[in-house]
Amino acid sequence: MIFNQYFYHPDLTQPVVTLSQEESEHCVRALRHRAGDEVLLTDGLGNEARAIILTDNPKACQVELHDVRMVKNTNAHRLHLAIAPTKNIDRIEWLVEKCVELGIETIHFILCDNSERPRVNMDRMRRIAVSALKQCQTTWLPPMTLTRFDDFLKSHAQMPADKYIAWCDDENTRQLAREGFSHDDVILLIGPEGDFSAAEIETARQYGYTEVKLGNRRLRTETAGLYGCLLMAVKDI
Amino acid sequence: MIFNQYFYHPDLTQPVVTLSQEESEHCVRALRHRAGDEVLLTDGLGNEARAIILTDNPKACQVELHDVRMVKNTNAHRLHLAIAPTKNIDRIEWLVEKCVELGIETIHFILCDNSERPRVNMDRMRRIAVSALKQCQTTWLPPMTLTRFDDFLKSHAQMPADKYIAWCDDENTRQLAREGFSHDDVILLIGPEGDFSAAEIETARQYGYTEVKLGNRRLRTETAGLYGCLLMAVKDI
Repeated sequence: MIFNQYFYHPDLTQPVVTLSQEESEHCVRALRHRAGDEVLLTDGLGNEARAIILTDNPKACQVELHDVRMVKNTNAHRLHLAIAPTKNIDRIEWLVEKCVELGIETIHFILCDNSERPRVNMDRMRRIAVSALKQCQTTWLPPMTLTRFDDFLKSHAQMPADKYIAWCDDENTRQLAREGFSHDDVILLIGPEGDFSAAEIETARQYGYTEVKLGNRRLRTETAGLYGCLLMAVKDI
Repeated sequence: MIFNQYFYHPDLTQPVVTLSQEESEHCVRALRHRAGDEVLLTDGLGNEARAIILTDNPKACQVELHDVRMVKNTNAHRLHLAIAPTKNIDRIEWLVEKCVELGIETIHFILCDNSERPRVNMDRMRRIAVSALKQCQTTWLPPMTLTRFDDFLKSHAQMPADKYIAWCDDENTRQLAREGFSHDDVILLIGPEGDFSAAEIETARQYGYTEVKLGNRRLRTETAGLYGCLLMAVKDI
């Protein structure tokens, strides 16, 4: 009997693995799986495995792996979203969930001149991402980082990608939705509620970023992030 | 001095209007506007007005209207979303907010065979929509209804529109993102967590609805709704 729900284990290269306490509880206590049941696992790296439960210990469920296979469901372009965390962290948590559902490649929380929030609980973000991964049967757990704006630009300077910075300036009329991408990877920078500073826009330009608009509406930070993510999911479909 | 924040009043046809208690409190108490200040109003019907505060009463703020003008920011196509409310109502509330931000035309909560939630607090939904309208400087407050699936189909039977029903069936490979629309209005039906029943799919077919997929991923109900909404915002941009 195959169940649709994924369980998460970061390493599917061993023949037998023990699920974490959280995953074991979910599998054995919440979903009442027993020894002999077949379940699906993902490592968040694109792989899926069929697994047979060996010991249904609710704190340390042991499973035997079969048929590990790569099932990464890629969009035509891989989106790397660098976004300023919102003052209300719920909005970013929600964005992380949706980004995982929609198949984002990586997520970077960037600290900007006008950022109102200097800290993000990355453990919590990771738990939210794992939960979305499991429920939506996606096999890609996007790597997430927390970094200063300048450091993000530096660390991605050599990456071959189409690079964009969302900017609400009226004179900027270039639309991300109309862009034809020349790389497989696309980087999109989205600023805080108070927008990027003029200095940040200038720095981004120097690093080869192009200013774009995300439609014709005024979007909240997290909606702008989602706009970019969904654009990749509908483009070239 | 012009403030970016909108205030909401459903009728901008009179020369002087009194804001509701909620709007008055927001305007006078929270944002500390005083008599003589200029503010922006919308009626949620596409109109914007400049207004001068006459009396800064925090329970009944009276304003004088100037320059009422239609500024409805339309997408190329008007989306009418009919969606089964989710078990967890937070997810639908969030969807309503995002739909208003992205410029949806109307929202209909439909009760389906597999619906887990028979009730929706429509007053609360309307408050959420008004709040989104104000913050995102949109002038269109989408009409919202709560209706049975069959009744929705009947009431929209004569409406000239491209009509679609989202369906997760593997044999259905038609993608909404690839569709060319022949009407200005597009109706999209999205089912509950347990999906539409076979009978509902059949009924929709009889009413001229076409089954479509929303990308290649398994999306939650509210993410599917957002997918449709964002598709309209990026299409033909």
